[in-house]
Amino acid sequence: MAGTYNICLDIGGTKVLGAIFDSKNKITYRLKKKTKADGDDSQNIEKVIISVVEEMINESGLKRDQIHAISAGAPGVVNSETGIVLFSPNLPWRNYDIRTPIEKKFGVPFYIGNDVNVGVLGEYKYGAGRGYKNIVGLFVGTGMGGGLILNGKLFTGNEFKAAEYGHMILDPEGPLCGCGQRGCLEAFSSKKGMTAYIRQQVGRGRKSMMEDQLVNEVFKSKSLKKALEAEDAVAMEAVDRACHYLAVGTGNLINTISPDLVVYGGGVIEAVGQIFLDKILAEVDRYCMPSIRSTVDLKIAELGDDSNLYGALAMIEGDKKKAK
Amino acid sequence: MAGTYNICLDIGGTKVLGAIFDSKNKITYRLKKKTKADGDDSQNIEKVIISVVEEMINESGLKRDQIHAISAGAPGVVNSETGIVLFSPNLPWRNYDIRTPIEKKFGVPFYIGNDVNVGVLGEYKYGAGRGYKNIVGLFVGTGMGGGLILNGKLFTGNEFKAAEYGHMILDPEGPLCGCGQRGCLEAFSSKKGMTAYIRQQVGRGRKSMMEDQLVNEVFKSKSLKKALEAEDAVAMEAVDRACHYLAVGTGNLINTISPDLVVYGGGVIEAVGQIFLDKILAEVDRYCMPSIRSTVDLKIAELGDDSNLYGALAMIEGDKKKAK
Repeated sequence: MAGTYNICLDIGGTKVLGAIFDSKNKITYRLKKKTKADGDDSQNIEKVIISVVEEMINESGLKRDQIHAISAGAPGVVNSETGIVLFSPNLPWRNYDIRTPIEKKFGVPFYIGNDVNVGVLGEYKYGAGRGYKNIVGLFVGTGMGGGLILNGKLFTGNEFKAAEYGHMILDPEGPLCGCGQRGCLEAFSSKKGMTAYIRQQVGRGRKSMMEDQLVNEVFKSKSLKKALEAEDAVAMEAVDRACHYLAVGTGNLINTISPDLVVYGGGVIEAVGQIFLDKILAEVDRYCMPSIRSTVDLKIAELGDDSNLYGALAMIEGDKKKAK
Repeated sequence: MAGTYNICLDIGGTKVLGAIFDSKNKITYRLKKKTKADGDDSQNIEKVIISVVEEMINESGLKRDQIHAISAGAPGVVNSETGIVLFSPNLPWRNYDIRTPIEKKFGVPFYIGNDVNVGVLGEYKYGAGRGYKNIVGLFVGTGMGGGLILNGKLFTGNEFKAAEYGHMILDPEGPLCGCGQRGCLEAFSSKKGMTAYIRQQVGRGRKSMMEDQLVNEVFKSKSLKKALEAEDAVAMEAVDRACHYLAVGTGNLINTISPDLVVYGGGVIEAVGQIFLDKILAEVDRYCMPSIRSTVDLKIAELGDDSNLYGALAMIEGDKKKAK
């Protein structure tokens, strides 16, 4: 008899999150494990993934034949058809076939997609996007990721590279982005962009509660939340600037796609999403055509950190439907 | 016996172009007629359309029963399913049902879509876009229109309003656009935007061959061509600026959609397209991610002023295929 449990993974640069879903799509078991993505040790991540799946099966008391499929979101350009990760900014995978070893090891189908694409799919199927058809998803984290649902399906463009909204240029003379361009949405509105702003202001001699966060590449979302609650001026400016450019970027995407929903997700939104949404809503009407604006909703993600896990589940579910 | 000839129309603010296509999709007859879109005289445009179709049938010697269908592109937000023009910037139609009177008059199906959407569809089926699957089309005319082909189909988004690339904001503090926003692509790169630049420079006391064009809202494309051939400094600056922002806008659209083709059309491109394309190609790599750039071609439209007529034909052909 075929298994009815699905194992879903959110593969990140520093950790792997795992969840087991039962046949009613409820999470029955969770696991979180740190990865060490040193240098080019691609096999190491593969080993971590395998050990996470094994541990989840063992600890949850499931038998191998109760597993129906394994599915994952991972950062980078992921060919969902072949299971090959073409490139990842945070993982040492280049043209790396992750499907074959996982399927060989566990004897069940393995699905994989870009993490934010998958997260937006999760929101579409199980979260804030239920009932919508054309969805633009913007995920604000260390960087800025995107996802696009068109006519109820994930749209990945040519070679699975669509929805890089984070690198939309909003000011050609703006601050340098990690991608080498200037004035990308990510350079203003991601944790990286906001951290750079705070670093600059602290460097000018201004005081901020977030100074202690500057030893790392980016601040922790919780620390931003605290600083906003305390009305820390520098943190508030960083957020105002981030939301201004998010409003411009959102306006451009509304004009381009005419979606029925724009959904904001990711770690920053999970922590201070309502503040971001209110600021974006206060500005966005200026940056898109009123007739197009009138038929689009703006919402924050409902599934929080679980968007990717639910999206991974949605990939399995979508494939079951196709097979019928 | 069902008719095999199709009558296709390109409905503009000042003129209607018509063409009769035979069963081999060759144009056998052409007509051009001026419209007078005074005030709110919506029925007048309808009368012009009917008289154009009647004249084409009579002058070409066709019989009524030889006509298979009539199809048209028109400016504005057009519901292609119902045949209702929701709004048009250049025509006096507001929620105007143009399908019913035309179908009643001629007894054949009438198709209608947004002119630039239809033009990009034409390029996809019969022009520069043949063999491509995901196409972003940018049409540079008096304003700046867009079209989007995804997975081989015209994508029109929520309520037929997608692909308003002309109002993508590239500089929130930039020049005022006709739409009320600042720094839209259209405000830099359309005829309106370039005319405003030339007007400004001439107003500062600089000389330009294009001075005589400033009595009208926008210059004629032929006049721009002449000025560029004569290396008129002001005209060249206007074009450099237009192409710079077209390159930024194109980069943003490449990052957003990951298309396999970006096609440039419209009156300006028909006149001086190679100059525009060369300038855009010289800059665009800076404004999109190299991995996404590597799988997209940039081309100028092949069908010129006939893009819309061929696109109107494609709407009929697409519907025939669906019916099979």
